[in-house]
Amino acid sequence: MGRAQMSDIAQLAGVSASTVSRALRNPEAVSDALRAKVNAAIEQTGYVPNRMAGGLAASRTRTVGVIVPSLINTFFAATVEAMADRLEPHGYQLMVGTSGYSPEREEALATSFLSWLPSAMVLTGTHHARGTLKRLVGLDIPIVEMWELGDNALDTTIGFSHRDVGREAAQHLFERGRRRIAFAGAAIDEDRRAWQRREGFLDAVRATQHQSPISHVIPQRASVEAGAVVFRELLEMHPEIDGAFFSNDALMLGAMFECQRRGITVPQQIAMIGFGDLDYGAWSSPRLSTIRPPRREIGLAVADHLLKRFNDSSAGGEVIDLGFQLVPRESS
Amino acid sequence: MGRAQMSDIAQLAGVSASTVSRALRNPEAVSDALRAKVNAAIEQTGYVPNRMAGGLAASRTRTVGVIVPSLINTFFAATVEAMADRLEPHGYQLMVGTSGYSPEREEALATSFLSWLPSAMVLTGTHHARGTLKRLVGLDIPIVEMWELGDNALDTTIGFSHRDVGREAAQHLFERGRRRIAFAGAAIDEDRRAWQRREGFLDAVRATQHQSPISHVIPQRASVEAGAVVFRELLEMHPEIDGAFFSNDALMLGAMFECQRRGITVPQQIAMIGFGDLDYGAWSSPRLSTIRPPRREIGLAVADHLLKRFNDSSAGGEVIDLGFQLVPRESS
Repeated sequence: MGRAQMSDIAQLAGVSASTVSRALRNPEAVSDALRAKVNAAIEQTGYVPNRMAGGLAASRTRTVGVIVPSLINTFFAATVEAMADRLEPHGYQLMVGTSGYSPEREEALATSFLSWLPSAMVLTGTHHARGTLKRLVGLDIPIVEMWELGDNALDTTIGFSHRDVGREAAQHLFERGRRRIAFAGAAIDEDRRAWQRREGFLDAVRATQHQSPISHVIPQRASVEAGAVVFRELLEMHPEIDGAFFSNDALMLGAMFECQRRGITVPQQIAMIGFGDLDYGAWSSPRLSTIRPPRREIGLAVADHLLKRFNDSSAGGEVIDLGFQLVPRESS
Repeated sequence: MGRAQMSDIAQLAGVSASTVSRALRNPEAVSDALRAKVNAAIEQTGYVPNRMAGGLAASRTRTVGVIVPSLINTFFAATVEAMADRLEPHGYQLMVGTSGYSPEREEALATSFLSWLPSAMVLTGTHHARGTLKRLVGLDIPIVEMWELGDNALDTTIGFSHRDVGREAAQHLFERGRRRIAFAGAAIDEDRRAWQRREGFLDAVRATQHQSPISHVIPQRASVEAGAVVFRELLEMHPEIDGAFFSNDALMLGAMFECQRRGITVPQQIAMIGFGDLDYGAWSSPRLSTIRPPRREIGLAVADHLLKRFNDSSAGGEVIDLGFQLVPRESS
């Protein structure tokens, strides 16, 4: 038996081929009974519709190109999973690429993805190479920049303010009675959202204490290991600190292990707060205070926005602020 | 200015449109100088080649459909990233879906992906729904099942033996002088590779000690929280244990935090080993012993296998065992 054709489905379902085609193209436009008959015939034959032909006819494929810095980072993995969960039932597939925080790699991916005539493009953040901007400006498909709210948006941005995250972290440490508080980060030249969290934190310290704030950043990528390193160096330079904001939870976990090794008590000697609300923070000893970004919520909001746009091309240019949540636990 | 056409590139590069087409279709077949001229013209115009048209002509698109259980799990995220890193320079893009360990969801994704006429399909594990098998058997594209080595392979399998992982974990605990050792797992009915690790562990205990081995599994998904829960329950039922193998590192980390809360010393009172070599294990206090799977190596091997197959359709049906590595640290 060869590959099943649309005519086989039509015959089994007892309808015309054009009716099968309509049921496949726009399932909402046919009756439940007809849809059920067509689906049963598809199931029986193992028929696979050719989306490529449909894509050429419509001059767009039902793909959405998504570029994130990394998937080995549950922040973005959760966003991508949620986006796929919401879009797949509507017949849209994600083409996913990871840029490794490199604008050049993002440009190469964007160029490659555009050659597939996607229905939409989703990028992370609002900072891109000039070549990426050149390719995206003026395209007649929805472009969403996520995880950040930018002034210079290409089209729609969906995310939250990382400066406000930094401000809230400083405020929280002050409220816990800490006075010599520091920022600890890693590779923030590459990760501009981490850079913004730092700026917000330093602004809040300057505004409250009228003195130059403490900050230490190492060039290596954020990880548990990097957290131990940046915290050790920070303590050597500033043994007087009584609180710290870590640019993400992986760094904070590394610092907490470093404290356990040195016999430093958390939060008694040093209060800690991070960013990300990663899996382990709620169960560590002590449990880690953090700021929770809307990881899944961003993916769902991007998907919902795109589904709206596919039906109403006049929408667009929105700024959707999903906010974030302070999660105080035992470490602060 | 409208969208750049291939004729614009040809004019700028001073060559014919068919030469541009050839340089795009098969970059290795033209001279370095010609490729450089064409690329410069593409760069200047922001031209985006239409891969869809190329896909229909070749009746396959240069996409690879990849289905993993989850991306919020750095095991599979690392594999997918490595696969993309290797395939993208060759003009292949990944279409990525997550099944959430559900065979039904995997079937829906496989069906959907096949409608894009992918060049290859990559699935996780060798256990699939009947509908998935029906759709994949007899397809004339490479099918790779990864992360597991199966007897009932559809085509090629690339991974390692999870039973051997379990056996090696038991052996390691015996060598450290432990005699009452237990398996701790989560949701292994869904995760058949975790189930195989358990079987290997229990086999090794039975063979060495001639007694029924200890095992406790909870139905919730593996996480740091689940690790605290399964370990607490295990200690209530079997307070005599002096060693444990955790089905993955997230569970072991949760158990280690539970020990810190209860004042149980690791490894003195209980030796621990996990699976996965996740980021935090090398930096925790104590540092966690584990078994390291070839996460990135699997992605690279799958990509290399596919690139070989795209050039030589006679290859296929291989079993590629990448092995794994015991990483003893302070917890055992």
